[in-house]
Amino acid sequence: MCQINRPITCESPVIGRSAIRFDALTKVTGEEKYAADYYPQNYLWAGIKRSAYPHAKIISIDSSQAKNMAGVISVLTGEDVLGSNRLGIFEKDQPILADGIVRHYGEAVSLVTAETKDILEKAIAAILVEYEPLPAVFDPKEALKEDSVILHPNRACGNVLLSSEISCGKGAEALVDCAYTAEVLVSVNWQDHACLETECGVAWLEEDGSIAIIASTQTPFRDRLELAGALKIPPNKFRIMAPYLGGAFGGKDGITVQGFLALAALNSGGRPVKMWYSREERFLAGTKRHPAVMEYKLGCNEEGILQALDCSILMDTGAYAALGGEVLELAMEHAGGPYCIAHTQIRGTVVYTNNPVASAFRGFGVPQAAAGMEQVIDELAKAAGIDPMEFRIKNAVRRGSVTPAGVLLTQTVGMEECLEKVSKHRLWQERQSWIDSAPAFKRRGVGIAACYHGIGFGPVIADYANAKLELSYDGRIIVYIGVGDMGQGNASTYLQIAGHVLFQGYDNMEIVMTDTAKTLPSASSSSSRTTFTYGNAVREAANILKKRILERALLLFSFQMLEQLNIDDLVLLPGRILHQPSGMELPLKMVAGSMDVSERATTYSYTTPVNKQVMKTGKNLRCHGYPHRVFSYGVQLVRVELDTLTGETSICELLNCIDAGCVLNPEVFEQQIQGGAAQGIGYAMFEDFSLKYGKIRTNDFSTYIIPTAMDIPDMEIITVSLAEYDGPYGMKGAGEIGIDGILPAVANGLASIIGKRITEGTLSGEKILLALRQTGREAVR
Amino acid sequence: MCQINRPITCESPVIGRSAIRFDALTKVTGEEKYAADYYPQNYLWAGIKRSAYPHAKIISIDSSQAKNMAGVISVLTGEDVLGSNRLGIFEKDQPILADGIVRHYGEAVSLVTAETKDILEKAIAAILVEYEPLPAVFDPKEALKEDSVILHPNRACGNVLLSSEISCGKGAEALVDCAYTAEVLVSVNWQDHACLETECGVAWLEEDGSIAIIASTQTPFRDRLELAGALKIPPNKFRIMAPYLGGAFGGKDGITVQGFLALAALNSGGRPVKMWYSREERFLAGTKRHPAVMEYKLGCNEEGILQALDCSILMDTGAYAALGGEVLELAMEHAGGPYCIAHTQIRGTVVYTNNPVASAFRGFGVPQAAAGMEQVIDELAKAAGIDPMEFRIKNAVRRGSVTPAGVLLTQTVGMEECLEKVSKHRLWQERQSWIDSAPAFKRRGVGIAACYHGIGFGPVIADYANAKLELSYDGRIIVYIGVGDMGQGNASTYLQIAGHVLFQGYDNMEIVMTDTAKTLPSASSSSSRTTFTYGNAVREAANILKKRILERALLLFSFQMLEQLNIDDLVLLPGRILHQPSGMELPLKMVAGSMDVSERATTYSYTTPVNKQVMKTGKNLRCHGYPHRVFSYGVQLVRVELDTLTGETSICELLNCIDAGCVLNPEVFEQQIQGGAAQGIGYAMFEDFSLKYGKIRTNDFSTYIIPTAMDIPDMEIITVSLAEYDGPYGMKGAGEIGIDGILPAVANGLASIIGKRITEGTLSGEKILLALRQTGREAVR
Repeated sequence: MCQINRPITCESPVIGRSAIRFDALTKVTGEEKYAADYYPQNYLWAGIKRSAYPHAKIISIDSSQAKNMAGVISVLTGEDVLGSNRLGIFEKDQPILADGIVRHYGEAVSLVTAETKDILEKAIAAILVEYEPLPAVFDPKEALKEDSVILHPNRACGNVLLSSEISCGKGAEALVDCAYTAEVLVSVNWQDHACLETECGVAWLEEDGSIAIIASTQTPFRDRLELAGALKIPPNKFRIMAPYLGGAFGGKDGITVQGFLALAALNSGGRPVKMWYSREERFLAGTKRHPAVMEYKLGCNEEGILQALDCSILMDTGAYAALGGEVLELAMEHAGGPYCIAHTQIRGTVVYTNNPVASAFRGFGVPQAAAGMEQVIDELAKAAGIDPMEFRIKNAVRRGSVTPAGVLLTQTVGMEECLEKVSKHRLWQERQSWIDSAPAFKRRGVGIAACYHGIGFGPVIADYANAKLELSYDGRIIVYIGVGDMGQGNASTYLQIAGHVLFQGYDNMEIVMTDTAKTLPSASSSSSRTTFTYGNAVREAANILKKRILERALLLFSFQMLEQLNIDDLVLLPGRILHQPSGMELPLKMVAGSMDVSERATTYSYTTPVNKQVMKTGKNLRCHGYPHRVFSYGVQLVRVELDTLTGETSICELLNCIDAGCVLNPEVFEQQIQGGAAQGIGYAMFEDFSLKYGKIRTNDFSTYIIPTAMDIPDMEIITVSLAEYDGPYGMKGAGEIGIDGILPAVANGLASIIGKRITEGTLSGEKILLALRQTGREAVR
Repeated sequence: MCQINRPITCESPVIGRSAIRFDALTKVTGEEKYAADYYPQNYLWAGIKRSAYPHAKIISIDSSQAKNMAGVISVLTGEDVLGSNRLGIFEKDQPILADGIVRHYGEAVSLVTAETKDILEKAIAAILVEYEPLPAVFDPKEALKEDSVILHPNRACGNVLLSSEISCGKGAEALVDCAYTAEVLVSVNWQDHACLETECGVAWLEEDGSIAIIASTQTPFRDRLELAGALKIPPNKFRIMAPYLGGAFGGKDGITVQGFLALAALNSGGRPVKMWYSREERFLAGTKRHPAVMEYKLGCNEEGILQALDCSILMDTGAYAALGGEVLELAMEHAGGPYCIAHTQIRGTVVYTNNPVASAFRGFGVPQAAAGMEQVIDELAKAAGIDPMEFRIKNAVRRGSVTPAGVLLTQTVGMEECLEKVSKHRLWQERQSWIDSAPAFKRRGVGIAACYHGIGFGPVIADYANAKLELSYDGRIIVYIGVGDMGQGNASTYLQIAGHVLFQGYDNMEIVMTDTAKTLPSASSSSSRTTFTYGNAVREAANILKKRILERALLLFSFQMLEQLNIDDLVLLPGRILHQPSGMELPLKMVAGSMDVSERATTYSYTTPVNKQVMKTGKNLRCHGYPHRVFSYGVQLVRVELDTLTGETSICELLNCIDAGCVLNPEVFEQQIQGGAAQGIGYAMFEDFSLKYGKIRTNDFSTYIIPTAMDIPDMEIITVSLAEYDGPYGMKGAGEIGIDGILPAVANGLASIIGKRITEGTLSGEKILLALRQTGREAVR
């Protein structure tokens, strides 16, 4: 008879398996609490009086009427902010509340706290602000002119936030020696993050005078530093908690409502305060993706080998810096695409205007750059008479190549293999027969794009994570989630890693969500680095905990069996430890009970290795990671069908082939890539963001159209799973690579149908119909 | 200007990428030398006089005429063998040359060496052997009877080589409590390995008296021990070299021609000798897959949860033990399939008969056991009224489950996910419409099977590998292939691992093929453990070498730059080392030149961890790994189309879903799974091995039909890539899991068409037609 016949029904998460998300059930049942779901006892509502001008001097603020309204607790202005009143991650230029000048439409002028939302709205309306309108600038090219209005006169270089140049080989000069050249001038539009959960949070004063904030934020640890300077309160006096976020995509990378909440809590007579943007307020006050104007010139030799690139990127960061400089940096590092080009000149400038503030947004400059590069390369392939897939394969980077930005690729590079996989896929192989079988009044085209995306922060900003795991006194595994989960599923992946190492199932695990008072300092949930960095940390913390558990169990077994035992004979099983040769078992709980709390908790501090290459080009470009060490790679293919009667375009099929290293949880991975692609489709075709004199005209979901499930095709995702050395279990980041190439893939597909390129902004039906008319390909009714 | 603009065109192998095999070019051009390709100067041919009886006493051998023929160098018999004259891995019972008795048709009686093949054949024919025929036994059931002829009278237990029992829970008794039961009696046939390269080799005496052998062998290191005892020559006096093998599949696991070669070389007057079996001789003298007779009874409760298994397996090992005991062990460990069954009784016996010798063959007992288990489970599903896929999913093992053989599964288990993937696949989902659309006179069916396969040797026999890597004086990486490559591509995978760690391309790498004088002792190329075990060893050896190279390079850089440098700033690149911050480079050659040969060579000894569970069941079953620690998992699906006029069956589509951990080289992995499946199709339907009185009637490729490319469908392979802790880069073995379930999948598909099971031997057209007649489903012409 065999000694073990008890089947273990609990399933432990394993790396490589599509484990259901830990939060799946609590989210679908509505039980999970987002920041928006917190309603502290006796709370007050806080809200903002916003500027009605894009650029104006504040002459006076008369809040007497508002202050006197019953139920109004406080009405504050910039003068009530005791610190620098300046937020910003690198460039601290954005007031919490305007102090004298407003620089964009909707800028916060006054902060009101009231008993109810109704009273709040009335009080806000009752504040009378007298403005002296100032001349304003809305076009980034105008902003560069010498006679332009200057938004921040104390800056040395006018409206330029950052301007730089990368040059390799002979630079742009080499274009003259090229057998074939092509050029495009492309402009891409603003994009709103359109998170399901708008900016929100609650705050209160603790008894010791410190400020507790529960907010929808990607950056709880860093937020404390931003707040500290702006409010002149030491960072350790803030406790910031980040529950699961209802979407963020970069829109919550840094302070949104946290400054207002802290300020309101300090002035609310000890009562908690709550804020929650309406959709319209989100449009008005939230950050956006940077629009960009890009000029690309690209050349190759007779054989189709790329020789020279000359490109310039002009971005509009709006009224304040936010992460504008860093977005430009990433765009410039990726501007030449994943290709070998010996001679390059990449110029980039990001300027202030009186438009809304642009900052981080999934892709972080790369979707913009790819929109330029992946269109010009198609044009060049056409000029050289080479198939666009073959052209890309010919020129793709490999491990050991140098990118157009001069970055030596020392880590895994799956670009060539992604392209080859797509080139062999039926969606590419059978494209002509699909195009030829378009129904009446429809035309079809297939477009591709290739892209890559640097992972993490690079050589200047420490890309670190501090993981903590605990074996609770009752034998459960507690995972401290140091990097917030904005919906991408990283919290579950951390559990999966811990469960994989410790062989424990979800039923024996708990999490502590990101909280500056409980979890350990870790950098933000951003930059495709979330699972990469914290994953490495949590794996090591789990290995240490496993060792401690087994060592203590060995002692207990030895006591019991009165003999020296071998640690290799012990196996950690769900809820217990087995001594294999004897078949004896100890409950994990018993082992936990014999350990001190300091033994039961393990931590591990991980900092991502960086590219040590010293760049002799691209002055000032190192803040956001230039040069990156690890990149993910991707190819996007779309099958586009165009109704020549209406100009309506459908994406019929979409293929995303990704090298993001080994895949830890296939389902979560696919969700990331699908989400990126859906957002990319919105960016390409739907989200026709419209501004007039700095005022957003598309400020709700009836005017700003995001794609619905009906607009998104079935997507196929295939992978090239190269084992990356640095990543936990060979993975690389997958958060952004899925969006980067969608717009140019669609644009390339459309161009093949229309016979010309639509190079300005969103690829909307009106523009398509107009272009069809121009090329004479419009259907005759 | 950026400092690095030299693109590196050489591609280094990366884990996860389909790298072309290192030997691809030399093999397709015919340049690569197999053992058969060696023709030493002045060599002689050696050959064998073989028994014409299945069981006989040798009265006399008259070789006078042969010896006197011009060009005959030597004629040897068992009397010329100075050692024990006994080969065998565990049981040493097989003479190199018969000494008194022959026990199977074609047994070696005399060894001849001659100048030419012609003379050799004439000399063999001229040897006159007088036999006294003995009663013989060919049926394993007969062999078990008390009055049976006994092949090896000195053994304690008659013709039984090994008999054992595994019993868990209440054993077979629990069947009576089952709501549903099913039973099948299945017999499976012999199978020939049918390698492209038959057994062959050359041997010569070295000046120091030692014997050098180049042979087509899976086990060069172990061969020395076998030869040493049989020939009474110390093991270190043998040098055995194993070039790439032209197929082996277990048929070259142990001594084939090596004993003859050594003996001939010792008696050839110092001249080299060569042997090379003809196809017919291979059939006659080579080992086979064990035929088996299996009785399976299986029961489940009302809900379809498996409760009890009663099974017995009877195998025929032929005249000698070879690996017969170990094959039975593996069959018994896997007899209950990858399911949770609390109560089991598994009986197994392997017996001697006067049939050909059976031994290792890809699958090693598991394809036999799966043929029983995977048919009875389909019958039980039918009885319980549950879909066979759902039935398997319900009962599949998970990590932490205990197998029907009582083995606790502590490592990754992808069974459930493999089943779920197949259940969602179009070949399963759309099966009914495919079946319904069969053309006239054709009927269609879809069959599935699930299986698992233990990796490596387990707790008794050390599963070890000693890897060696060298940086040559001129800066190249030399990989010493300690475990022979029989065509599965493991040599290339070792290069891939070394190249991955050291970032060197094939163009900067060399190999030294398996050679007891040059490579380090490592266990055999077998048991799905080849890449697993040596891969772990070579990875660590590469890590050590990398560290040494970087440390020495650091020193050289420091000398040159006159400052302290940081080792983290160095990057190993193809052919050179880069100091990233300065952009300075050192050729690998220069670093190699500054290292001592003892520094340039690194070794690593790896022994696979084992399952420490002490089994209280299955006495004597531990030699071949019971209980295993790591298993691979697989599901096979076939779409079968049957011509009801002719009985001809085609496999229209085949799907193999495999959990063999992470995949290091997708192309090589797929080739392994495809090769296994093709061999499984041959086993199931084509290779109708036929014996009469111990004599093989199907002894060439015109009578023993192996499938051709025309008979093999396009196969789809999908994976569940769980990251196994033990395996290098998360992999598990993939050599055998592809074959295990093919026969029962085909049988299940056929049974659904025919309405009854063909349970005896190969599923050939004649049997199918007969069965169709019996069930009245034959087409009426």
